[in-house]
Amino acid sequence: MMMSSRNSGTTVLRHLGFRLFSSAVASRVTASEPAYSLVLSRPFVPSAPARPPASVLMRLFPVRMASTSAAPALGGEQEEREAKSSSPAAPPNGSKAVASYWGIEGSKITKEDGTPWRWSCFMPWETYEADLSIDLKKHHVPRTLLDKIAYWTVKSLRFPTDIFFQRRYGCRAMMLETVAAVPGMVGGMLLHLQSLRRFEPSGGWIRVLLEEAENERMHLMTFMEVAQPRWYERALVFAVQGVFFNAYFVAYLLSPKLAHRMVGYLEEEAIHSYTEYLKDLEAGKIQNVPAPGIAIDYWRLPADATLKDVVMVVRADEAHHRDVNHFASDIHYQGMQLKDTPAPLGYH
Amino acid sequence: MMMSSRNSGTTVLRHLGFRLFSSAVASRVTASEPAYSLVLSRPFVPSAPARPPASVLMRLFPVRMASTSAAPALGGEQEEREAKSSSPAAPPNGSKAVASYWGIEGSKITKEDGTPWRWSCFMPWETYEADLSIDLKKHHVPRTLLDKIAYWTVKSLRFPTDIFFQRRYGCRAMMLETVAAVPGMVGGMLLHLQSLRRFEPSGGWIRVLLEEAENERMHLMTFMEVAQPRWYERALVFAVQGVFFNAYFVAYLLSPKLAHRMVGYLEEEAIHSYTEYLKDLEAGKIQNVPAPGIAIDYWRLPADATLKDVVMVVRADEAHHRDVNHFASDIHYQGMQLKDTPAPLGYH
Repeated sequence: MMMSSRNSGTTVLRHLGFRLFSSAVASRVTASEPAYSLVLSRPFVPSAPARPPASVLMRLFPVRMASTSAAPALGGEQEEREAKSSSPAAPPNGSKAVASYWGIEGSKITKEDGTPWRWSCFMPWETYEADLSIDLKKHHVPRTLLDKIAYWTVKSLRFPTDIFFQRRYGCRAMMLETVAAVPGMVGGMLLHLQSLRRFEPSGGWIRVLLEEAENERMHLMTFMEVAQPRWYERALVFAVQGVFFNAYFVAYLLSPKLAHRMVGYLEEEAIHSYTEYLKDLEAGKIQNVPAPGIAIDYWRLPADATLKDVVMVVRADEAHHRDVNHFASDIHYQGMQLKDTPAPLGYH
Repeated sequence: MMMSSRNSGTTVLRHLGFRLFSSAVASRVTASEPAYSLVLSRPFVPSAPARPPASVLMRLFPVRMASTSAAPALGGEQEEREAKSSSPAAPPNGSKAVASYWGIEGSKITKEDGTPWRWSCFMPWETYEADLSIDLKKHHVPRTLLDKIAYWTVKSLRFPTDIFFQRRYGCRAMMLETVAAVPGMVGGMLLHLQSLRRFEPSGGWIRVLLEEAENERMHLMTFMEVAQPRWYERALVFAVQGVFFNAYFVAYLLSPKLAHRMVGYLEEEAIHSYTEYLKDLEAGKIQNVPAPGIAIDYWRLPADATLKDVVMVVRADEAHHRDVNHFASDIHYQGMQLKDTPAPLGYH
């Protein structure tokens, strides 16, 4: 079902990034998605193609809007209003007051079919189609001591997880993602601060790691729809995040080489877990419910997609993160810095 | 000079975000930038417009490339190679070995004129044109105690800065940006972790704050070109970042309301400093050198742009950050959470 729809629309961001890394996609460009080439060459091609149909604009701007930037210079009176609007004693219609600070009046994005865009955590142009052709078996054989430390640390973390969740893969996936979304954010933040301290560019790696974190977070938002966390699971997430965030923070400061390798192995385990999840779905042990709406929009799945399709695209995402992190570790192993190697931007 | 070029190409990202907040832009859509409408409606419009010219593809894929995802399943032998390539004893041609892990062979992006894209810290589709029409005088009058704490904290930070830099605005701007790029990253990270812990969406605010951080970092990358930091300035940055990062981290945990307000006032001060910078440039006290290449590409400035143009677009960016942060604080003041209010994505 999904494969049949793989070559329909894909986002700019995914394409711009991904195509720099894939000839397979390059060949697909000729078949479709001209938007991409228009966009990339846009800054450098002054001649603009045909204007968009008015209908599109109508859909995008159903109500009158004005941004702060378009607003005239403000006098004391306006300032008064602002001060009032932001005082704790603000009236119940406070949200209106906030909006008035910007002059925004409920801007709305609607889909092609006229229905409003339901998600605020991601926008239409951030959606993409997972590349299901990625090799899921790829494994980095640990040779050095650090590699083995990374490998066995991750392996040893499996046991408690297996015991806690058994084969409740819905909850397992959900919990997994609350952890999986941390390393990208920590790494991206540390590279950002490093770039500022050292007055040097990042080579695009800040963005790549933050993209990874955001992608993992979207996995969580998706699995939340199929498995509601219980109170003790929520409590566990608090504890685990507190420990893991700080542990990874220190690990990344001490050895990015080790930290990225560890994430590489974490993702290998994630792929394994999702494969088990799929087995239970195929065996009918877990009900193959319809895919959540958020997943259908985020990965551009067909309307009749199921949980099985969702698990497949999520697994493909994890495989991409596996590659990125092993790659990052390899770069460090060879005495180079990430910024010296072009980052695989939009590789997912 | 810049105003005359304001209506030429702009990036997808900026437009998608910005147009949701500006009717002024909506009207401009009809005049240009069709790429945008193609892209946004892409996921929902199956029918694809004409294919891109082969020349575009040639520019994008000068050499054969294959991504990991396109690679066949790997046997033990390939793994051996990977393990070797990532061992500390890797040969001097280690970078090739790393590349082989991905099968990427020097992908290159080139500009329309055939010259290679020089920046790895940002891509062509992330560039935009600053909105110079934004009101620079807008000020949030402090009324509540927290507002006043925020206001006077920032004001008191001005004195040492003035004494240290006097009117060396180049260095001042550079140092300012190493600090200004921190709050967005801290806020974005904390909202990200919160979203994971609470199993709830972010309303787009994670991205908005991270965008702010990245934008400030690009300011730094720009000013580095016009003012080389001295050793004691580099040392100062280390110290300041260490203190400010932790201080803002704690402040945001205790009171996001205060933290965002403080950034709002920081940006108001930044606007003031850049205005002073402009005065000295216009008075000829500071030489109006040609704009750095990175600035010309990032803000789509004309080839003959000068430092004055750069300072103007940077100042406009700061004004946008001012609005976003005062807005965020206002939302908290009215007892709402950021996630409850659609975030001003791509507002710059």
